Amino acid sequence: MTRQSTVDQNQSTYNAKNFITKERQESKLDIDQLNVFLENGEQEAKLTHDLIEEIINDPILKTDTDHYDITKSQEREITARRIARLSLYMEHDVKTKQREFKDDLVKNLERKDSKLLTNKDLSIFDRRLSLVANIDPGLSTRIGVHLGLFGNCIKGNGTDEQIHYWLQEKGALLLKGIYGCFAMTELGHGSNVAQLQTTATYDPSSDTFKINTPDLLATKWWIGGAAHSATHTTAYARLIVNGKDYGVKTFVVPLRDEKTLNLLPGIMIGDIGAKMGRDGIDNGWIQFKNVVIPRQFMLQRFTKVIPGSPPKVQTQPLLDQISGYSALLSGRVNMVMDSFRFGSKFAIIATRYAVGRQQFGPEGNETQLIDYPLHQYRVLPQLALCYLVAPTAHKLMGTYISTLMELHQAGADKAKLINVSNKLKDLFIDSASLKATNTWLVAKLIDDLRQTCGGHGYSSYNGFGKGYNDWVVQCTWEGDNNILSLTSAKSIVKKFADISRGKNTTVTTDSLKYLTPQFIGKSLSKDLTFKFDNKKDFTEIWAVMIIRLIHHVVELISKGTKIDSLSKTLVQISKFHAIHSMLLTYQDKLNNESEASVKDAYTKGYLWKLYELFSLYFIDQHLGEFLLLKVVTSDQMSQVLQPRLLQLLPEIRKECIALTDAFKLPDAMINAPIGYYDGDIYHNYFNEVTNNNKLEPDGAGRPPYYPLLTSMLGRDDFQNRLGGSFESETLDSLLK
Amino acid sequence: MTRQSTVDQNQSTYNAKNFITKERQESKLDIDQLNVFLENGEQEAKLTHDLIEEIINDPILKTDTDHYDITKSQEREITARRIARLSLYMEHDVKTKQREFKDDLVKNLERKDSKLLTNKDLSIFDRRLSLVANIDPGLSTRIGVHLGLFGNCIKGNGTDEQIHYWLQEKGALLLKGIYGCFAMTELGHGSNVAQLQTTATYDPSSDTFKINTPDLLATKWWIGGAAHSATHTTAYARLIVNGKDYGVKTFVVPLRDEKTLNLLPGIMIGDIGAKMGRDGIDNGWIQFKNVVIPRQFMLQRFTKVIPGSPPKVQTQPLLDQISGYSALLSGRVNMVMDSFRFGSKFAIIATRYAVGRQQFGPEGNETQLIDYPLHQYRVLPQLALCYLVAPTAHKLMGTYISTLMELHQAGADKAKLINVSNKLKDLFIDSASLKATNTWLVAKLIDDLRQTCGGHGYSSYNGFGKGYNDWVVQCTWEGDNNILSLTSAKSIVKKFADISRGKNTTVTTDSLKYLTPQFIGKSLSKDLTFKFDNKKDFTEIWAVMIIRLIHHVVELISKGTKIDSLSKTLVQISKFHAIHSMLLTYQDKLNNESEASVKDAYTKGYLWKLYELFSLYFIDQHLGEFLLLKVVTSDQMSQVLQPRLLQLLPEIRKECIALTDAFKLPDAMINAPIGYYDGDIYHNYFNEVTNNNKLEPDGAGRPPYYPLLTSMLGRDDFQNRLGGSFESETLDSLLK
Ligand SMILES: Cc1cc2nc3c(=O)[nH]c(=O)nc-3n(C[C@H](O)[C@H](O)[C@H](O)COP(=O)(O)OP(=O)(O)OC[C@H]3O[C@@H](n4cnc5c(N)ncnc54)[C@H](O)[C@@H]3O)c2cc1C
Ligand SMILES: Cc1cc2nc3c(=O)[nH]c(=O)nc-3n(C[C@H](O)[C@H](O)[C@H](O)COP(=O)(O)OP(=O)(O)OC[C@H]3O[C@@H](n4cnc5c(N)ncnc54)[C@H](O)[C@@H]3O)c2cc1C
Repeated sequence: MTRQSTVDQNQSTYNAKNFITKERQESKLDIDQLNVFLENGEQEAKLTHDLIEEIINDPILKTDTDHYDITKSQEREITARRIARLSLYMEHDVKTKQREFKDDLVKNLERKDSKLLTNKDLSIFDRRLSLVANIDPGLSTRIGVHLGLFGNCIKGNGTDEQIHYWLQEKGALLLKGIYGCFAMTELGHGSNVAQLQTTATYDPSSDTFKINTPDLLATKWWIGGAAHSATHTTAYARLIVNGKDYGVKTFVVPLRDEKTLNLLPGIMIGDIGAKMGRDGIDNGWIQFKNVVIPRQFMLQRFTKVIPGSPPKVQTQPLLDQISGYSALLSGRVNMVMDSFRFGSKFAIIATRYAVGRQQFGPEGNETQLIDYPLHQYRVLPQLALCYLVAPTAHKLMGTYISTLMELHQAGADKAKLINVSNKLKDLFIDSASLKATNTWLVAKLIDDLRQTCGGHGYSSYNGFGKGYNDWVVQCTWEGDNNILSLTSAKSIVKKFADISRGKNTTVTTDSLKYLTPQFIGKSLSKDLTFKFDNKKDFTEIWAVMIIRLIHHVVELISKGTKIDSLSKTLVQISKFHAIHSMLLTYQDKLNNESEASVKDAYTKGYLWKLYELFSLYFIDQHLGEFLLLKVVTSDQMSQVLQPRLLQLLPEIRKECIALTDAFKLPDAMINAPIGYYDGDIYHNYFNEVTNNNKLEPDGAGRPPYYPLLTSMLGRDDFQNRLGGSFESETLDSLLK
Repeated sequence: MTRQSTVDQNQSTYNAKNFITKERQESKLDIDQLNVFLENGEQEAKLTHDLIEEIINDPILKTDTDHYDITKSQEREITARRIARLSLYMEHDVKTKQREFKDDLVKNLERKDSKLLTNKDLSIFDRRLSLVANIDPGLSTRIGVHLGLFGNCIKGNGTDEQIHYWLQEKGALLLKGIYGCFAMTELGHGSNVAQLQTTATYDPSSDTFKINTPDLLATKWWIGGAAHSATHTTAYARLIVNGKDYGVKTFVVPLRDEKTLNLLPGIMIGDIGAKMGRDGIDNGWIQFKNVVIPRQFMLQRFTKVIPGSPPKVQTQPLLDQISGYSALLSGRVNMVMDSFRFGSKFAIIATRYAVGRQQFGPEGNETQLIDYPLHQYRVLPQLALCYLVAPTAHKLMGTYISTLMELHQAGADKAKLINVSNKLKDLFIDSASLKATNTWLVAKLIDDLRQTCGGHGYSSYNGFGKGYNDWVVQCTWEGDNNILSLTSAKSIVKKFADISRGKNTTVTTDSLKYLTPQFIGKSLSKDLTFKFDNKKDFTEIWAVMIIRLIHHVVELISKGTKIDSLSKTLVQISKFHAIHSMLLTYQDKLNNESEASVKDAYTKGYLWKLYELFSLYFIDQHLGEFLLLKVVTSDQMSQVLQPRLLQLLPEIRKECIALTDAFKLPDAMINAPIGYYDGDIYHNYFNEVTNNNKLEPDGAGRPPYYPLLTSMLGRDDFQNRLGGSFESETLDSLLK
């Protein structure tokens, strides 16, 4: 129903709703099985949907299209209110996980002798946060900075006692007592953490550190939570002991009074102000002037300052650096999951719109956009991407949790530490390349899909604008995508070089298993060809491509080319590594029996079609490289691959609505009327636009500032407006 | 100076300013000559800079970084104030052009017997508007809708008397009396104009039309100016006479009282509300209910309704349709110019930042970003794009003006009309393909360059966010880019097919001169190779690529492939056509002596380097197609083209600052502190951020809503917050 409309809406000859109904009637896919596949198991799927229900029904968390109209200051306040709301869920979620509702669990956790909460204890809340991100990404980041960055920095770098103190006794982990931010980046240094300039100078006489900002460029910058909310920060600063610079370490520094939120002395903080997106986060800058903290506030798991004369510095080199960066690991892993969830949302919107929207073609029965081959090429591979990223996102999350657990359990056991350090290194490679690749791909997905919705994609109420603006920072923060790609590619190339030189290299993940002498040999053989007559080929061709690219790089380097000038290729290697590992994980999951496995043959067949589409689409997108390195030939491309691609699109088109329904994302999470479930795009859209834009108070359809316009339109003639006349006659008369 | 900072800024070891100064000292480019080249002549350059000076010094038009903080309603009001301001410049500019300051020219123009103003009379104001767009794109569109869309719709479809009446007697052209909007798009129809549903039914008894919105989907949608400002609209509606539907024609429909801006009866208008960008424009929706307008308000240059019983409809088929769309032509031509100006702005910002920003490398002397080969590849081709698009933008504008002049002078002369209609058709091809290609390229430019600025690119104050949001609608409005590309490619393919069949085809522009039997023959010959030993090759290779692609398409069609399934290739053809015509125009301009020609050999050498870079960069970007159709071979690519590309980048890097200085865009137009002329990126940025974000009133660095946070952090234990206890002991005691 559309009350604002003066016209008879039922007269409409174009009834978008019918199309989507028809698609659903004709679908033979098992949506439940698909969803279980996407959510990685039945129980997991149930948890996800329960949490979604809670979020969209919570009076404070639920988010409507009026959210697209709020100002920055409103958004910041709403975000703070929502954080307070989520803090109650946090208690609830930990209790649920521990199946302990009697006794005051939270109070218990604050006791000195309580156990440390594990990632498992927090897993429900983590999921909740990851789902909230889908309707309010600023909110989940603003909490994420506290729990994920501040919290993980302490977990990764603090002693067990420090972890217990800050996270449980002080309450941080439960969103109580203190609120943290993460002060790594400075105005002058972002990616190059090793060159940060803030100093922490040890003063033996008082057994304290003095934190200082030596100059403007050392100003901490972009710090989420600093402008409004943080009481504490983990500051990255150069450890100076006895005049010697020991490099960048981490320190817990109090910023504000916990009771009043007033700034503490020596702390200068300002607001970074308006951003392209995520306005709900209060990013700020911080300058320190002789801020004194006790020695015990330095996080000292791997580096210790031992008082004495002279004081000493003790370091565990093996893990110091790797662990120093571990605070960012969780964010990267989460961003791969975000890519799945955020991408799905826009894939749903654009697909439903493409089915309901008609344009051109026979009068009265115009063609649905989704029936144009060009439109299929623009929309469906993006849908495939969402399917392909899901298994990898879950797997990466699992590896992350288990590896960190191992790290904490390793204690001081050298062998175990070496083992876990190898795993961490591979995790860095995978998470970096998957974070960079997927955040880029989803940025492009949102933007490309917006364009497929024509003008209506540009309306704020359909979500693309804010979605894009909120999203793209994922390509920059917690590791700039280009830098991450370079780093991960360089590690891969190094492993390759080691293997080529016959050195032993540990590979702890499947995703790097292409790095064996056998496979390298096979990949470089001239007469290797793919027939694409079995599913494996669609994955393996990417591994061959990677090997050839690496080989190419290594050859050039051996001929004296500087690695820096090969950066463009290195970025490709990282991207192809990510694509390959997504295909591999997906394929494995489809092939192996598991809780999440798909029994229905027709449905499984569609999952394979998406797999092929994904592989072929990206081969098509990177055709230059594939041809150049002769991984495919021109003939293969034009006679096998392109025809197969063109054949897959209409096949997948047939089930496109069911494939998007399978994400089971309710309208309240989609928050974009042209993408709602019932497919009634025009009424839904018109309703939301008119609800959010009430008539002018006097009903006259004129703005409050209308006198500006009427006085322009009714302005007097030039003559009369002028203090004197410009008229020839008058002028001539002046100097007769 | 940075007063807000508590730290000594002169201590900074990183002094970005010095780098940019050094670049300028070492440059040997003649910036003035470059600027004249870019602005298409000395006089033109002077006009541009005079207008820029006026804009940035005007108290109402000047735009600072606080513009990035305003709300939608503020932006709309500011925009209205600026329009009123510009209306005075409009009078002034017409007087200047006519060199007539005595007498009240404006009043004269309103007289019934006055001459029609020409495009030449309006050329200063047009330039002014195009320059204003660089700092306030919403403003220039909001005026552009009135002058460009409403005005050109009347010019293109109205009789001379109608043009004179609405534009001069009523004052529209002078931003006086009435304010127009352009009501083409409906909720249900955008690209497919022929299927618009609004009706204009002729009533012979009263000699009037009744305008009606038959159903929800026929609601006029997205209409810029409708929500707040327009007094009139040119409505696209189906002409119904005697029950017969004559298709979509144009009608002038009054919407609001000119004096009060109150809505007229039968007119229902609402606000479309928030958009991804361009919030200054008051887009609205319109529904008509029995709105009566006199027959004379239908624009009747090419289609006339002649009263009588029965009434008759008379059409001039040759020009009816082509002219019907001409309202959109001016917008497309302008968007190519916008691409040059808007692109340049971001190229300047990113280049200056890349020179001043250091990250990684030797301590104390870190590497400037611009010295990383990857960074050069990310930044410099974008700079080249801005150079390449300039000559084409000017040329297209010239062709547009002269062709429209011819059209108006043709009168009823059939031969002249056929001639001008051929020119119009070619102009449609060129403007469509150049609009689509360049608006896409600049969208990518803004986004890619934002990423090169890392986190600081995400700050609103550095312009990328709003810039992108404002820009991308150019890919959708006044012809969706995909549709435009398809249309223009189909016309090119058709010409090709005609030529192949030996039919005579008129080609009126250089850009299509590759369509000769000779060149087609040469292009399709198997042993054609390019040596790249002369400048022409860099252009010609694109023409060959186009021919081969077309040939490929035509072959497939002849084998029965439906043209729709070749759409992806058609979009490529249009894109390559645009790239080719940019190269061609640029090359011609460099080769030919003209007012804008560059005398200095070193400088000219650099213009050629940019030309080569542009061509090679896009070959690299489209390598797949080039290899697939064997326009280049793998060996050529890896042994000639890629090395040349890698060699060009550092050469151009050497002069990158001078090349951006040559745009002569003052800081007040750039409005992004990391891109200001002096290169003092950190101080400028810090100053703007702190100026726009004053400390909290109580100086405590806490937000107004802080109690939300303190009550969360200080919340009581679960026990105490609960109405009853959950404690085991208490619970057990309840049911003993
Ligand atoms: C909204 C937002 C919130 C943030 N929140 C926080 C926070 O809470 N805490 C915090 O500590 N930080 C935060 N950050 C900072 C963020 O982590 C950094 O912006 C990010 O790490 C990138 O660093 P940078 O901006 O300094 O870019 P730079 O490192 O300066 O890089 C700039 C550009 O140069 C390129 N480049 C750099 N070095 C090389 C090289 N060697 N080779 C080739 N190319 C190179 C990069 O690819 C990039 O495009 C936030 C940033 C944003 C935008
Ligand atoms: C901010 C803004 C301001 C505007 N101002 C005005 C204004 O003042 N007056 C006015 O009249 N209009 C205005 N418009 C409308 C604008 O001109 C239309 O949005 C534009 O023409 C595109 O039409 P559409 O949105 O209906 O897209 P559609 O035509 O519905 O197209 C949707 C998508 O489908 C694809 N598609 C459509 N047909 C085909 C096909 N045959 N083959 C393959 N793909 C196809 C397109 O590529 C596109 O991606 C404005 C729009 C915006 C966003």
